[in-house]
Amino acid sequence: MKLYSYFRSSAAYRVRIALNLKQIDHELIPVNLLKSEQQGDEYVSKNPQGLLPALETEQGVLAQSLAILEWLEETQPNTPALLPADPWQKAQVRNVCYAIACDIHPIDNLRVLKYLSSELGADDDTKNTWYRHWIEIGFAKIESQLGNGPFCFGDKPTLADLCLVPQVFNAHRFKVDMSQFPKIAAIYQHCNTIPAFIDAAPENQIDAA
Amino acid sequence: MKLYSYFRSSAAYRVRIALNLKQIDHELIPVNLLKSEQQGDEYVSKNPQGLLPALETEQGVLAQSLAILEWLEETQPNTPALLPADPWQKAQVRNVCYAIACDIHPIDNLRVLKYLSSELGADDDTKNTWYRHWIEIGFAKIESQLGNGPFCFGDKPTLADLCLVPQVFNAHRFKVDMSQFPKIAAIYQHCNTIPAFIDAAPENQIDAA
Repeated sequence: MKLYSYFRSSAAYRVRIALNLKQIDHELIPVNLLKSEQQGDEYVSKNPQGLLPALETEQGVLAQSLAILEWLEETQPNTPALLPADPWQKAQVRNVCYAIACDIHPIDNLRVLKYLSSELGADDDTKNTWYRHWIEIGFAKIESQLGNGPFCFGDKPTLADLCLVPQVFNAHRFKVDMSQFPKIAAIYQHCNTIPAFIDAAPENQIDAA
Repeated sequence: MKLYSYFRSSAAYRVRIALNLKQIDHELIPVNLLKSEQQGDEYVSKNPQGLLPALETEQGVLAQSLAILEWLEETQPNTPALLPADPWQKAQVRNVCYAIACDIHPIDNLRVLKYLSSELGADDDTKNTWYRHWIEIGFAKIESQLGNGPFCFGDKPTLADLCLVPQVFNAHRFKVDMSQFPKIAAIYQHCNTIPAFIDAAPENQIDAA
């Protein structure tokens, strides 16, 4: 498989962790978001949505990180499974995934920040405050729902951790005070002792700036 | 079951359609977003995320519309199924769901529009342009991926239609020119000939203003 990725794309980061945890052979193809390569003809011919990531498989190209993660879970249920088997427990994991992937990440996406500057004349301070605002209100809600670790749901990683870790990486980048969210901070720290998470981190990518 | 809902919440609208299609007995409990009731103690004690919708079940309260939809699909696989059985086809349906639920809806959410006014001083024109912008670029991508209907994926409704219809409702409300997206417009029109969709529409809710 080929994963179209950008080192700092948190949606791509989620899939990188999954591929590593499940030990799925894959090649990483860098697509530079800062150069808008995701809107270029070559990439759009693969993924008409023009967003990262996309996974090229034997069946075709699949986009949307969560669709990719669910598909991997169904078709490559190698150890470790990243969703619990019980439907109610699975729903709790997805609840946290969506609290990040729907309610935090899209609002802080690079394309939204660009629109804030170009169309609303927002300066860097305004954009940084915006960025932190959506992370902080989202993390506060998630923090209140978490147990005692070491992962979001007990002693095994789930898709919730795969969504959370990249979002915490972004929080650090934008200087969110993570001491407000001790449970989330501890999960992040724990995940980053695991090679599959470490190898997927932005700074360890071939296209890291 | 009880569904906490607001007539114009598109995330609640998705779940209303599912409950109707699957003919699941339920009671609708209105939560007024304009009065910020979703942030009140009573609702937050049910759903700590303080967002709509939430589904109260025998096992507890579940939040996040997509987590609810997936859980209903797994636990109440009554006719009609709203996800194809084949993993690759299922991934295509989820791809469209997330293109709406992650890439359009959250950026146009009421809380984001409120932040644009209160923190960035955006006027109504700026907010309406913002709203239409994210729908238009999102719909253009989805339109390019759709087949010939009558639903998003062939002749049966899927979760993709449940996400699409509420988003088109919003597009109409904000005067998006839907002639740009003939396939999406036709799917919307077709869905709105079906009682389960009609009964779930905002104007047909007990709390419709």
